[in-house]
Amino acid sequence: MSLLVTGSIGIDTVETPYGVSENCLGGSAIYFSMAASFFTPVRLIGVIGADCPFDLAEVFAGRQVDLAGLEVRELSKTFRWKGSYHDTAGSAITDNVELNVLAEAPPNVPDSYKDSRFVFLANTAPDLQRQLLQQVQAPAFVAADTMNCWIDSRPDELKALLKEISCLVINEDEARALSAERNLTKAAENILAMGPRIAVIKRGEAGSIMFSANQEKFLLPAFPTSQVKDPTGAGDSFAGAMMGYLAQTDRTDFEALKTALAYGTVAASFAIAEFSLQGLTSVTRPDIDGRFEALRKMTQF
Amino acid sequence: MSLLVTGSIGIDTVETPYGVSENCLGGSAIYFSMAASFFTPVRLIGVIGADCPFDLAEVFAGRQVDLAGLEVRELSKTFRWKGSYHDTAGSAITDNVELNVLAEAPPNVPDSYKDSRFVFLANTAPDLQRQLLQQVQAPAFVAADTMNCWIDSRPDELKALLKEISCLVINEDEARALSAERNLTKAAENILAMGPRIAVIKRGEAGSIMFSANQEKFLLPAFPTSQVKDPTGAGDSFAGAMMGYLAQTDRTDFEALKTALAYGTVAASFAIAEFSLQGLTSVTRPDIDGRFEALRKMTQF
Repeated sequence: MSLLVTGSIGIDTVETPYGVSENCLGGSAIYFSMAASFFTPVRLIGVIGADCPFDLAEVFAGRQVDLAGLEVRELSKTFRWKGSYHDTAGSAITDNVELNVLAEAPPNVPDSYKDSRFVFLANTAPDLQRQLLQQVQAPAFVAADTMNCWIDSRPDELKALLKEISCLVINEDEARALSAERNLTKAAENILAMGPRIAVIKRGEAGSIMFSANQEKFLLPAFPTSQVKDPTGAGDSFAGAMMGYLAQTDRTDFEALKTALAYGTVAASFAIAEFSLQGLTSVTRPDIDGRFEALRKMTQF
Repeated sequence: MSLLVTGSIGIDTVETPYGVSENCLGGSAIYFSMAASFFTPVRLIGVIGADCPFDLAEVFAGRQVDLAGLEVRELSKTFRWKGSYHDTAGSAITDNVELNVLAEAPPNVPDSYKDSRFVFLANTAPDLQRQLLQQVQAPAFVAADTMNCWIDSRPDELKALLKEISCLVINEDEARALSAERNLTKAAENILAMGPRIAVIKRGEAGSIMFSANQEKFLLPAFPTSQVKDPTGAGDSFAGAMMGYLAQTDRTDFEALKTALAYGTVAASFAIAEFSLQGLTSVTRPDIDGRFEALRKMTQF
């Protein structure tokens, strides 16, 4: 089934204890699309400036990523992010952000994307997420991410968005802030009461949990790996593989969602093993399936 | 099979955001024995002073806990611990410790315990753990806990102990300190290289992991619960149910160890729901089995 993603495309500079990656390709839509494309064709919506040094057609060559929704603004500059990690198990410290084109009007949804059935709205202002979603005719399953800054500064817009989506995919600090609950079980229940029928909470090294409005629960550890060079894009890679699997199988029942989360975990574990997109681009679908089976073996009793 | 535990018996005062529990029964051997006794008979070794207000025969009435190894020293005082939790997901702050009888010579292993096949050495000085273990004739499976203070102050004695045990059960901070590795995959591998064939790392809300010297790995999330009143004893309850299940089934293969960890997780989830021992004493084996099945359902995909 068709899968649409809206999100950022950025020029990242990332420093971790393993080195520095300067002016590399990043952004939520990029990581998401790369991970999802192992499973299903992806329709990407994003906007860059004329300064963007990357040829996205080349980046995604052979990877079933539709770039009809990529807008290049000749008079604008591409989003830039500079971040560092003291510890690759922790969160990034943002050293510098230049929103540039992301501070302008969002891109439009091309006509050829309007019949998309699976939609992922990566983190941006909740009103923009809603504007983008309203251009899709009859989505079957809509997932969204958000961030603390929107939880704090745009609570009403975010609550309006939550009533229009099927699934919220956020990290544990965001879940606590959104729900005003320290305990994640209560936090997930509070989030479900705000609208979505599925709440996915990403916990980094502690794995992820998923609760449904039907009282179903799923708990998944992170894939244990000793190679973590650059955590950037882990969450978007997780969401990409998760949504990619759902779109591939055209299923959104809880059993399918469990499998989707496991694929998300595997994609994230590959993404963080190398700088920028290298962790994802250096693997194949059989590698992903192999690690998926290893994860299953390590978690079943 | 016979299960022996050596550990502390204490008079605890615990404060959490849910209230205060003054002068209640605590200590590693007590939580361990209570949790293990749901599975198998337990042989307890511990020492108290004449001031101990608890009748342990009454506490364990009907619970198959052998108290032949309980020593009451008429001229000594019982171990006391006062701790508080600002947040029941975090670690305790120790407000006061009176070692009292724990600073004296350790109790002896009674003759009737010397044929014990399963042994758990709860946290104490590693040399005392070895002295106690040497009194057991032919143990089949020995697990031990330790603490940062011994890792820092008695590294050589601890390393000698690690060569004599089958399994180390410690929390993630201790695993990192012992292995000098931040990454838990590497930490577990380092610990296995020190001697035990099984390393179990408890991660609180993030669950637990188990690695074997045969490259087997197991990952288990914590049981999701919104009721956490007092985390005291969670780790010892975990170890108690884990060792209790192994002794009950007389198995120590990796598949059995996985099931044992799941039972440990369930026992810990009950232990933390109420102050002191109430979380454990208010449940039955069918309650434990019910939650075990729920945990299995929430983790399988």
